[in-house]
Formats: sequence, structure tokens, C-alpha cells
Amino acid sequence: MPITVLFAAGDALWADYNAALGTAFSEAELNINLVQQADPGAVDYIIYSPGSTLTDFTPFTRCKAVLNLWAGVERITGNPTLTQPLCRMVDPAMTESMVEWVVAHTLRLHLGTDTHVLGQDGVWRQDPTRPTKIARERPVTILGFGELGQACGRALMALGFPVTGWSRRPTALTGARCLAGADSLDTALSGAEVLVLLLPLTPETENVVNERTLSLLAPGAFLINPGRGPLIDDAALLAALDAGQVAQATLDVFREEPLPADHPYWAHPRVTVTPHIAATTRPVTAARVVAENIRRGETGEPFLHLVDRQRGY
Amino acid sequence: MPITVLFAAGDALWADYNAALGTAFSEAELNINLVQQADPGAVDYIIYSPGSTLTDFTPFTRCKAVLNLWAGVERITGNPTLTQPLCRMVDPAMTESMVEWVVAHTLRLHLGTDTHVLGQDGVWRQDPTRPTKIARERPVTILGFGELGQACGRALMALGFPVTGWSRRPTALTGARCLAGADSLDTALSGAEVLVLLLPLTPETENVVNERTLSLLAPGAFLINPGRGPLIDDAALLAALDAGQVAQATLDVFREEPLPADHPYWAHPRVTVTPHIAATTRPVTAARVVAENIRRGETGEPFLHLVDRQRGY
Repeated sequence: MPITVLFAAGDALWADYNAALGTAFSEAELNINLVQQADPGAVDYIIYSPGSTLTDFTPFTRCKAVLNLWAGVERITGNPTLTQPLCRMVDPAMTESMVEWVVAHTLRLHLGTDTHVLGQDGVWRQDPTRPTKIARERPVTILGFGELGQACGRALMALGFPVTGWSRRPTALTGARCLAGADSLDTALSGAEVLVLLLPLTPETENVVNERTLSLLAPGAFLINPGRGPLIDDAALLAALDAGQVAQATLDVFREEPLPADHPYWAHPRVTVTPHIAATTRPVTAARVVAENIRRGETGEPFLHLVDRQRGY
Repeated sequence: MPITVLFAAGDALWADYNAALGTAFSEAELNINLVQQADPGAVDYIIYSPGSTLTDFTPFTRCKAVLNLWAGVERITGNPTLTQPLCRMVDPAMTESMVEWVVAHTLRLHLGTDTHVLGQDGVWRQDPTRPTKIARERPVTILGFGELGQACGRALMALGFPVTGWSRRPTALTGARCLAGADSLDTALSGAEVLVLLLPLTPETENVVNERTLSLLAPGAFLINPGRGPLIDDAALLAALDAGQVAQATLDVFREEPLPADHPYWAHPRVTVTPHIAATTRPVTAARVVAENIRRGETGEPFLHLVDRQRGY
């Protein structure tokens, strides 16, 4: 008897994921009926993304788990009809692209490469554009030191950057200064020259970057946000940019996406907006994670990346 | 009796190096008289840079070694009056800045971050600007796989890039495909999506990047040159850029420096010129290398980074 899996992640993703999931299910030797429409009472698993039209999980009485295709789950954890286990995506290829994006922009700001990209005017400006520091003189703090944060920390340390990782719960990463809990947030931020935001969005993390916390950074710090828009108090960041406390910000995520054309971030000379592209789930690798979780559900093993509804991620 | 060391590296460097060398000599417990002028017959060592006015080494009959402050020695190896041992600089901080510059520009081109740096116009262009590949799908070839090349290779592999290193003599670096000798150059270049030039400049390496070798790269490859300008046949590169065989080039070094304002590289939309800033010797760390070589000279141990005059580096 086949396992019924409802693909409730939007039509736009269907073609790519139908193929990738088919391959992953057969590799995992799972007999699965993957559908876009089904009698709710007959559904064993739901594959979900925030683009879905599905909002009422009540009728899915037999559903063993909702498997999110994205890493962020803040738009679904608050849904009161969702009583089934919820898993977020930890896609190895997505982790790799996040590391690439974070390292690319850290080095870009560290070395000031924009000066050259924007200044191809025939003037040989050697002295003012020569990098003044090497990586080991530029401390980086990463807020959010889970799977993604630690992968970024590892890559930055390999280049010499001193890394501090801060998270809600204690972590350990060789070579990094690992801090945990609200009490140590100020220590984590103090003197940081680069701040990378990889926290999940929860009521506790909203506006974690605000006037007070920005003032703890080293003067002229760089801010990089590939996490979630509401982690930042936007007015406080704009003020810190204007005051020079933050020298440059590179932001991939925003409270409202697409970022409105008239938002001050677009026009600000020291803000670089990227359109939520830092890291994307890739069908082939994500499908394997989905298949593995269904295999676990069928054999009664614990799910991977199960969301703790209490803490919100 | 103090050792007499002539600082013949130009007045501009004197202040920084006088202080750094003083510290390094005293750390190494060397009794040194560091001077900018001296009776040639009394000089034990010469500290040199290509900016020096010293061109005739004949009168320095007692000099045990000429210690170059830069990694490149092509402007001095051909000097027929130089019969003393010549050492090039391998400064650990310079290696680190080279790695940073090479990784920064590899990631910049790989992820296409210029699109965002240059396009802060309020338009949310998600799909065409989303990176399409991850690092492990983008093979990098490094020509010149000595100290600098291998350090860059290591850093790029840590990010997932498959790395091929090519050099004149056989090398070995775990995880990299290491090729050596003229016969394997074509293999090293074939299908490379990123080509990084870190070769020394010698009669054999001049114009190693030419019409034929460029045609071996993957179509739309990226070229990064922090090595030496004459490694590239400039006309061939411009033609390959116009044909799309090379999608983008980032060049730090040129046949003529400063690069003349009317050189086509400045105006070319797919060339980024940087003003020979990829890596600079740093006084504090370089001074320690100089001190160590003087210590070796005094005790009769072999010099570090001795230039082989036959091969030219």
C-alpha cells in the first residue's frame, strides 16, 4: 500500500520537485504516491512551503508530519490548526550556498572591493584603496550559531577571521568563541567588526539589532543579514549608518519582500540590497532530506530537524 | 662588532621598516647597524625593493645576501652585477592577504555580486540574479602552485571549489589535482571555469594566457590575475572577452603600472581593474623574515626563499 504524500508547496515548484522527489523516493526504496490534490483523511505526509494555499491542517487527521521545504518556519509555526509534527529543511546544498554568500560579502566589505567595482574610471588609486587589515585582525560575530551559523563560522575561521558565535542554547565549535543565552549577547557583540545575522525569527529575536546593540559594535562595523528582516530595527540601523557606527550593511531579507522601491535602503549609499537570494533550497538535495524523514516516519525513528513549537524553530 | 645592513628599498618605506626591523633584529638578538647609506665594502646584507635606486651590486664585495622585500624578483634577477645570493620575500601576512583577495574575487565572480553592487535601483530582480551554481560545481585552476598558489587552493577547496594546481615542478596538496610541467598545461586549463594566475614572471611564463590557452577554458570562464601583468597576452584576452569565451576578468597587475587611463581594460564592461593591491608585504611580519635570513647567514645555515637564478624565481 503506497504512502500518500501531498505536495502543498505551490505549483511553481511542482515540476522541479516532482522529478527530484521521484528519484529520492526510489533511491530510498519508498513506495510513494506523490499528489497535488488528495482526500485530507488519506494523506500520510505533507510537503509544504510558505507559498502554499494550504492554511487549515485540521482535516489531515492521519498526517504523520509536515515537511517544510525552507529553513525558515516562522510563517507556519504560529498556525493553531497545525498539530502535526513540523520539520524544517536543512539542505546541505543550501548550507553551502549560505556559506558562499556570507563569506563573499564578508570579504567584499573587509577588502572594500566595491571601490574598484564602482570606480573603473582610469584612475590608479593605490594607497587609499589598499586593504588595511588582514582577516585575523577583523573579528566577526555570528548571531545564530546552529547548522548554518557554524558552517559560516568554520569557513570564516579558515580564512583567519576570529569568530564569535552566539546562540540561545550552548554550542561548541573548535576555534570559535561560543557564547549562549541572553546574558552573553552584549559580550558577543562588543567590539565586533562584522556582524552576521543567522537567527531564526521568534518573538525573542525580533529587533535584536537595535540602537543599543548596534552601539556595542566596533565603530565602522559591517552588518550582513541573510537571516530574517525583522531581526533588525530598520530605523536604528539607518541612524547607525548615518552616524558611521555601521560603515556598510548588506541585507538579503526584509520586513516586507520584495523590498518596496521607495524604501530608504535602496537609495542609501552604504546599504547593499540583495533580493533574498543568499541561499535557496535545491530540489535534488532537499528531496533526499524529505525522503529520509518519510523513511524515519515509517520506521518510527525520530524525525530530522523537528521544530520545537515552544521556541519557534 | 655589529652587522651592517643597508636599507636600499626606497625612502618611502624607511619609516615603517626602520621600526619593524629594529624590533625584529632585537627579537632575534642580532646586533645590527641598519643604515640607508654605507661604504659598499662594509655592507654585510642589502635589503632591497624594486623601487630602489641601487642598480650596481659590484662594489658590495662583502655582502652575503640581497634580501628582497617583495615576492616578485623579475626586475632584479636579470641584473648582471648581482652575483650575491638573492632571497625573495615570503611574508605570511602577504600570503594571507593574497588568499583573501583571490577568494574574495573568486566568490564575487562566482556569485555575481556586482549585479547587486551596481544595481541598487529599487528593482527586486530575484530570479535572474540568484546564483545558479554552488562552489563544488565550479572548477578552479591555479597556474603557479607554490606557497601562494597552494594557500589559495586550500582556501578555495575549504569552500567546496574543485581545485587544479599547475606548476613547473611537481607539487602535492591534499584534495587538489596537482599537475606539473609544460605537457600538462592544457589538461590543467581544459574546462576550468575560474583561472587564477599566480606564476612568477619568467621567459617561459610570459603570455602563458593567450588565444590558444584561453580557448581551452570552459566557455564563459572567469580570469583572475594577481600574479604578473605579462603573463597575459592582452589582445588575446580582450578578444576572448568580446567573444564571451571569458565572461569576466579581474586584473590586479599589468604590463605597465599604473595602468594608463586610456587602456581598454579600464573601459571594458567585463574587466575589473584593481591597482596592484592584492597583496602587500607588511613591515612587521616581513621584518621577521629578514631577521631570520640574516641569522641564517651569520650561522651559515641555508637562506630561506633563495632565488634560483637559472629558473628566475
